[in-house]
Amino acid sequence: MPASTPLVAFDDPQYREAVVDLLGAIAYGEISAFERLAEDSRMAPNLEDKVAIATMAAAEFAHVAPLNERLTALGADPFQAMAPFQGPIDRFHEYTAPDDWYESLIKAYVGDGLANDFYREIAAYLDADTRDLILASLEDSGHAAFVVDRVRAAIAADHRLGGRLALWGRRLMGEALTQAQRVIVDRDALSALLAGGVDRPGIDLASISRMFTRITERHAERMTELGLAS
Amino acid sequence: MPASTPLVAFDDPQYREAVVDLLGAIAYGEISAFERLAEDSRMAPNLEDKVAIATMAAAEFAHVAPLNERLTALGADPFQAMAPFQGPIDRFHEYTAPDDWYESLIKAYVGDGLANDFYREIAAYLDADTRDLILASLEDSGHAAFVVDRVRAAIAADHRLGGRLALWGRRLMGEALTQAQRVIVDRDALSALLAGGVDRPGIDLASISRMFTRITERHAERMTELGLAS
Repeated sequence: MPASTPLVAFDDPQYREAVVDLLGAIAYGEISAFERLAEDSRMAPNLEDKVAIATMAAAEFAHVAPLNERLTALGADPFQAMAPFQGPIDRFHEYTAPDDWYESLIKAYVGDGLANDFYREIAAYLDADTRDLILASLEDSGHAAFVVDRVRAAIAADHRLGGRLALWGRRLMGEALTQAQRVIVDRDALSALLAGGVDRPGIDLASISRMFTRITERHAERMTELGLAS
Repeated sequence: MPASTPLVAFDDPQYREAVVDLLGAIAYGEISAFERLAEDSRMAPNLEDKVAIATMAAAEFAHVAPLNERLTALGADPFQAMAPFQGPIDRFHEYTAPDDWYESLIKAYVGDGLANDFYREIAAYLDADTRDLILASLEDSGHAAFVVDRVRAAIAADHRLGGRLALWGRRLMGEALTQAQRVIVDRDALSALLAGGVDRPGIDLASISRMFTRITERHAERMTELGLAS
């Protein structure tokens, strides 16, 4: 980070620890998303869709290097920073293993969207440099239109598919919340970050409730865009 | 390609067809390598190795877009150009599915090396623009040192592993040659390219023999570098 930016917040070791946690979680999340999307690309019904999903995978992985550089600049080992999140993130993927190509597409779109919304909400409580880095990592991989197009066409061709995929979207949301909640409870520094500090605003219960409302609403918007009830 | 470069060779529809074949084969090869490396990254014994192999995967995939752009510029559909090579390349991977992490590493290193040597040899018979594009696609993903380091350390720790991995290297070489030969026989334009044209030198039997000698020698060098008998 630029030496010219005084970062009062980093004088607080717990704040630094929370940022290391958060960057480690995002980095491992990107690696994991990369691996799942690459696996999904093998299920693609044709080469064009294969390349589209592989492009999403490569875009996720491209975010890892800048996150690792920042972790190193903060004096942290990137791999140690990621380690605590490997369990919860792997479990999320284990419990939401797609059964077919459409479940994969929806998971790529809805899962990515949920993770982005969640990190974006937390980024609002961070110093400007960290916030900018996180927002850059969450940039849309630009393939949302591809997913929406393929899912809507499939539902139009087979209406029963819509019901199954709507259930799938709810399950993704439920698992994501379960694992996210577990991570925050397990990581003291992250919980403390949300509680605030002398030089940073905390997040009160009313704010947490509004945050979850916003995340849920955006999830519903994505499901609607896919032509699915949320 | 720059309009200022007159490409006499492209006036020959069979030459154009051969280039489309070759670019299609390389593009699908990169997509396929990406998928296998991404799958291998899930087998990685630790996060550091996982990121190293995923970085190799992303580097392979990054070559696909420029190849597809050139195919489009040549008036070809990239996905149609790739299609004939999906079978042979998928079969290569099916017959050489790694059983463990070290077989994966060696396949990444030796398989990539073999493919690069083969395409580099053919590129010598092409127009300068196509040759440059192909050579750029074959740039070393820069992780050879990582593979050599991991494999040598594993063999030092367990000498029996060396014998098994040496056999594995021979099997990779055999399967690669089988599939490459089948592709050339099946694709008339590629066979014709090797036979030469009015404005291009062909490749005679003695040259083919020297080409295979060079490819075999470089394979042997890679095996030696890994600490394995070839």
